[in-house]
Amino acid sequence: MGSSFGRLFRITTFGESHGGGVGVVIDGCPPRINLSPNDLQEELDRRRPGQSRIVSPRNETDRCEILSGVFEGQTLGTPIAILVRNEDARPETYREMKETFRPSHADFTYDAKYGIRNWQGGGRASARETIGRVAAGAVARKVLVQFCPELELVAYVVRVHELLATVDPATITREEVEKNITRCPDTAVAERIIALIEATRSEGDSLGGVIECVVRQPPPGLGDPVFDKLEADLAKAMLSLPATKGFEIGSGFAATTLKGSEHNDPFEMRDEKVRTTTNRSGGVQGGISNGENILFRVAFKPTATIARAQQTVTRGRTETTLTARGRHDPCVLPRAVPMVEAMAALVLCDHALRQRAIALAAPV
Amino acid sequence: MGSSFGRLFRITTFGESHGGGVGVVIDGCPPRINLSPNDLQEELDRRRPGQSRIVSPRNETDRCEILSGVFEGQTLGTPIAILVRNEDARPETYREMKETFRPSHADFTYDAKYGIRNWQGGGRASARETIGRVAAGAVARKVLVQFCPELELVAYVVRVHELLATVDPATITREEVEKNITRCPDTAVAERIIALIEATRSEGDSLGGVIECVVRQPPPGLGDPVFDKLEADLAKAMLSLPATKGFEIGSGFAATTLKGSEHNDPFEMRDEKVRTTTNRSGGVQGGISNGENILFRVAFKPTATIARAQQTVTRGRTETTLTARGRHDPCVLPRAVPMVEAMAALVLCDHALRQRAIALAAPV
Amino acid sequence: MGSSFGRLFRITTFGESHGGGVGVVIDGCPPRINLSPNDLQEELDRRRPGQSRIVSPRNETDRCEILSGVFEGQTLGTPIAILVRNEDARPETYREMKETFRPSHADFTYDAKYGIRNWQGGGRASARETIGRVAAGAVARKVLVQFCPELELVAYVVRVHELLATVDPATITREEVEKNITRCPDTAVAERIIALIEATRSEGDSLGGVIECVVRQPPPGLGDPVFDKLEADLAKAMLSLPATKGFEIGSGFAATTLKGSEHNDPFEMRDEKVRTTTNRSGGVQGGISNGENILFRVAFKPTATIARAQQTVTRGRTETTLTARGRHDPCVLPRAVPMVEAMAALVLCDHALRQRAIALAAPV
Amino acid sequence: MGSSFGRLFRITTFGESHGGGVGVVIDGCPPRINLSPNDLQEELDRRRPGQSRIVSPRNETDRCEILSGVFEGQTLGTPIAILVRNEDARPETYREMKETFRPSHADFTYDAKYGIRNWQGGGRASARETIGRVAAGAVARKVLVQFCPELELVAYVVRVHELLATVDPATITREEVEKNITRCPDTAVAERIIALIEATRSEGDSLGGVIECVVRQPPPGLGDPVFDKLEADLAKAMLSLPATKGFEIGSGFAATTLKGSEHNDPFEMRDEKVRTTTNRSGGVQGGISNGENILFRVAFKPTATIARAQQTVTRGRTETTLTARGRHDPCVLPRAVPMVEAMAALVLCDHALRQRAIALAAPV
Repeated sequence: MGSSFGRLFRITTFGESHGGGVGVVIDGCPPRINLSPNDLQEELDRRRPGQSRIVSPRNETDRCEILSGVFEGQTLGTPIAILVRNEDARPETYREMKETFRPSHADFTYDAKYGIRNWQGGGRASARETIGRVAAGAVARKVLVQFCPELELVAYVVRVHELLATVDPATITREEVEKNITRCPDTAVAERIIALIEATRSEGDSLGGVIECVVRQPPPGLGDPVFDKLEADLAKAMLSLPATKGFEIGSGFAATTLKGSEHNDPFEMRDEKVRTTTNRSGGVQGGISNGENILFRVAFKPTATIARAQQTVTRGRTETTLTARGRHDPCVLPRAVPMVEAMAALVLCDHALRQRAIALAAPV
Repeated sequence: MGSSFGRLFRITTFGESHGGGVGVVIDGCPPRINLSPNDLQEELDRRRPGQSRIVSPRNETDRCEILSGVFEGQTLGTPIAILVRNEDARPETYREMKETFRPSHADFTYDAKYGIRNWQGGGRASARETIGRVAAGAVARKVLVQFCPELELVAYVVRVHELLATVDPATITREEVEKNITRCPDTAVAERIIALIEATRSEGDSLGGVIECVVRQPPPGLGDPVFDKLEADLAKAMLSLPATKGFEIGSGFAATTLKGSEHNDPFEMRDEKVRTTTNRSGGVQGGISNGENILFRVAFKPTATIARAQQTVTRGRTETTLTARGRHDPCVLPRAVPMVEAMAALVLCDHALRQRAIALAAPV
Repeated sequence: MGSSFGRLFRITTFGESHGGGVGVVIDGCPPRINLSPNDLQEELDRRRPGQSRIVSPRNETDRCEILSGVFEGQTLGTPIAILVRNEDARPETYREMKETFRPSHADFTYDAKYGIRNWQGGGRASARETIGRVAAGAVARKVLVQFCPELELVAYVVRVHELLATVDPATITREEVEKNITRCPDTAVAERIIALIEATRSEGDSLGGVIECVVRQPPPGLGDPVFDKLEADLAKAMLSLPATKGFEIGSGFAATTLKGSEHNDPFEMRDEKVRTTTNRSGGVQGGISNGENILFRVAFKPTATIARAQQTVTRGRTETTLTARGRHDPCVLPRAVPMVEAMAALVLCDHALRQRAIALAAPV
Repeated sequence: MGSSFGRLFRITTFGESHGGGVGVVIDGCPPRINLSPNDLQEELDRRRPGQSRIVSPRNETDRCEILSGVFEGQTLGTPIAILVRNEDARPETYREMKETFRPSHADFTYDAKYGIRNWQGGGRASARETIGRVAAGAVARKVLVQFCPELELVAYVVRVHELLATVDPATITREEVEKNITRCPDTAVAERIIALIEATRSEGDSLGGVIECVVRQPPPGLGDPVFDKLEADLAKAMLSLPATKGFEIGSGFAATTLKGSEHNDPFEMRDEKVRTTTNRSGGVQGGISNGENILFRVAFKPTATIARAQQTVTRGRTETTLTARGRHDPCVLPRAVPMVEAMAALVLCDHALRQRAIALAAPV
């Protein structure tokens, strides 16, 4: 259980890091949406290892195959199955992990839960699982283009370790995000991030940071009271990504030191629309989008895999030390940007379909 | 849609702030769990308005009635329906809100979504909806007592505005939390919080803060990869509560400034169990509980309702100012503690049942 | 588990035969649908005991209260909770059932499943549970009026025991169905049914029969491949009703003795629409409505409660005999007609909303 | 939507008749169940075309690949993805169907629903979709062996057209079913069925019939009141299979001509268990298994594809005639037997897991 997400635009991912492959089945995609493997590949290429010198050197081309649900370039309305084969698997690299629990990884907890574990490269807990999410997110984007044509969705790195970038969510574009390998659009900070990642890797250590995501021009009315509030579904989506430790929307934790008179967003009329003069709500009020920019941040811990000796125990309950082998990312943030965007697109697409189901003639 | 939560222990809440009443239906509760209205009432009393001088004076006794699913003091396995009538409704107090959108409330977004809104006291967006959650959470606790008898679940206020408490999650008890009206167990800080809340109320303003929650001695193995990670479900649960802006587990946002070598939790053998020497993971690794304390924090914004004139617009699209009437909490945190506990209990109970469904003989 | 039905228009029923009451929560009803308690009461009155001399004399007025989700005569889009109190409960009548399993009832199986059972009048297994379904079905009808204004839905008794009625599904109206107490619109047969029911009751025995249901002018395109075929969801809906033993759509079991050349429905153009010249498909092809009349039949067994001594065993595993007490229906069919209609309306409403979510511009 | 089935043991099938392939993802399978591709292949071979002279000659070996969820011969608890490639696709055979709706097929309804359709060989509506079900059913059987080791599940053909077999559900074995190509274990009738199928095919026509399925020694307590009654879920499962028109359990439609005194199943003590002396209930009372044999029947219509000229219309709304090309089954029943068994196994497995989740110590 637990490998499905969404209610109307519903995805189910599958696959371990090593084995036949990883992928996703999307059930509930509307018909007659233009879709080609290239739409998916563009996003998968942003996610794949080996894309730059600061990410894992595992050499996967991650070419996807659409097995079903698309015909003559259009979605059929039937399940879209997408498969990416595992190519560069070196399970022998991980043999030591068969017996030894890697600290702050899922080895021990999978064993505790299931009594069995594919110990090759993290198995199901590998970030490789996110391939299915990113592919599905690309499909969700195509649906959003159809139903919310003005919507823009951009994520980017705003912090790595102590290095804090300055980015304007109101104007940032994907092109700016993609112009360097960190996906931090503040060029000066990006240079320092690259240097820090390289230095940290050479020390056998790893880094964390924060990704911010903005959704501009969302339609008002997305999100369902009371459990499926838009921010609740976004929080779940983000905390389901590997290595995440926190989520905040709008003013977030900083809200807690403001008073109501400082925090509330006054309403005004602008361009004949009801707008807020500030956006501490982060685009969501009462769990429903108000038409302002949806803005949230996600905290990523430093990569658990480090090239240093660490204290741990074995499956057989013996204390030992482990020095990680295998290829890994010294900092997951550059590759996590398309994951955050994919999960956000999935949440928005699902809620857009949900709203279509119940919407009557134009509301107030 | 959106008023149900959980997969096996599944609740559906209903009700507006003003109208017949609010409540919940729990489907999936195991049979033969001892349950009395008193079990629910104890939790509802911690949530209800009018309980102390620092919360809303709305005078609701919030007496619950169990309509079904319990027989001779035990659950039947069939749906448990719980109803709390609305008593002290003064809808006329809210008549101004019929036409005017309260800033940072859900008035505008409900109108945008549905084209209609029960404008009396917040309607479905009122925190009164959480009565159903708190009642269901009390039932979930009873199930947890049965299936995870060692588990302890305690939430408490750790910060209001700038006032930061010192609390040890390893030892804090409900008795300590309940010994003052703030539900902040740091007595000295609690005194200052009371003074701050009273001063802020007299200024017509409001406050936010942070609630921390600890789950001690959870069984390892709760949580499902990959979307239903324990922290993902907790994040959704918490962000579905009114007035929340952020969630973090374990090291949280602070993790982002640590390096992997500083952040990882080494494993060791302790009392013949696999344990971690530190707990930056917050009790969850790879989305699954590892048996350490589950520790998370939730950010609450300052109450949106304030007794000051605010700029806003009407349903008719005219700019205006609004000064809130109606009774409200100057700071939601004291009453939010049982809500956080209830949502945590619901998540844990659901995952405990899920694990029972698939568990074979004792795993590793 | 198991007390919820539907995906977008989702209902959860609750309640035992004796206890606080029975009811339903509807989550997912679109907003701004006109709805009054009278809309529900009309259907509940068709279902309630004591409505005529051939049904159970239990005297319940079954007055419903709408607890939430409706405001100033319109649905809010939020959960609609409906409660009917149990009034004429005589639990002592059933005391014998505390220890003795009634043959072909659910007493033994509830005990086997849950280890506990509300033995008063059938508890959750009582047909009284269907009050929630009938109330929700009345709401579903209101939604269908909005979204499928041409649709007509009529069920009726076509057979009781060996008495077979002649009814034309193409023209039958609710008025004709309601004109006698059997809900069999073939007047001559209805007279014989009344006589048979009365004679059978006087013998302490009971009767079964068949209800047919027609949905005229449904929109084409309802039903989802492959598991949520319209006939699959209808079959589940009908077999979830108490006392049902079979379901067939269109040609049904009789199809099995035809050859393909006799059974296929040729297409033709009629009134500029694609139509079939025959309708052995029963309005559904490949699980999706084709615009022809949806026609299905449901088999009901004879009422299990009979006033004759029957061989059985006790909870304590002793063989004994039981002669039923308590009030009951000698033939459930007259009261089951509104239940069949309600379940059909729920299925259609759910699929109508599902189709709205994915529909693009006008298809072929 | 609609391509998922089950609540805890949840499958999602994908794939069109022509295209990359068909398959299934199973989410919720317990860990450490022994599973090999051979377990699946045995069932797939019973389903595949080309297996005998009375079924479709389409030559598919239907070799399955397990892409994930199995490691060293055991299930991991993670999603099991199974893929079968389409090999012998001759889409050009179907080109005529691009423009012309085949009578009593899903061509028109898919167009009406989606505005697009993979016209090659039935697309998603092809019985080829059932490959995923049969593979998943084989996995469900393995789980049932673990959790309900005494359970036996056998389906068989009891009627083709007017030819009615005599089979004893209490003793029939899979070996007897498999001993001839009709899967009708009454040898004499099977011979006549073969002759009838061959004669009918030579006339360009097709046949329907009835499959019966028995589940022996099920545990009591499976099935959830009130919507997820065991017979309701079985009815949905069966009516979701292609070409089905009816479902009945136990006494079925024949129940309707019995009186209660004739139909009720008296209880008795046998081998220290509560048993019924007759089994008109078909093993289910109040929606929950009572431990007796679960017995149900499914009606299949004659194959819609026939080699005769039929009246129909084109996508362009012109009347025309169509004579089917393509390979097809003159009678689907022999190949439908493993489909019925698979769907029954899926329902039982799901309910067995559901019952594990809530079961306390041994009930009454």
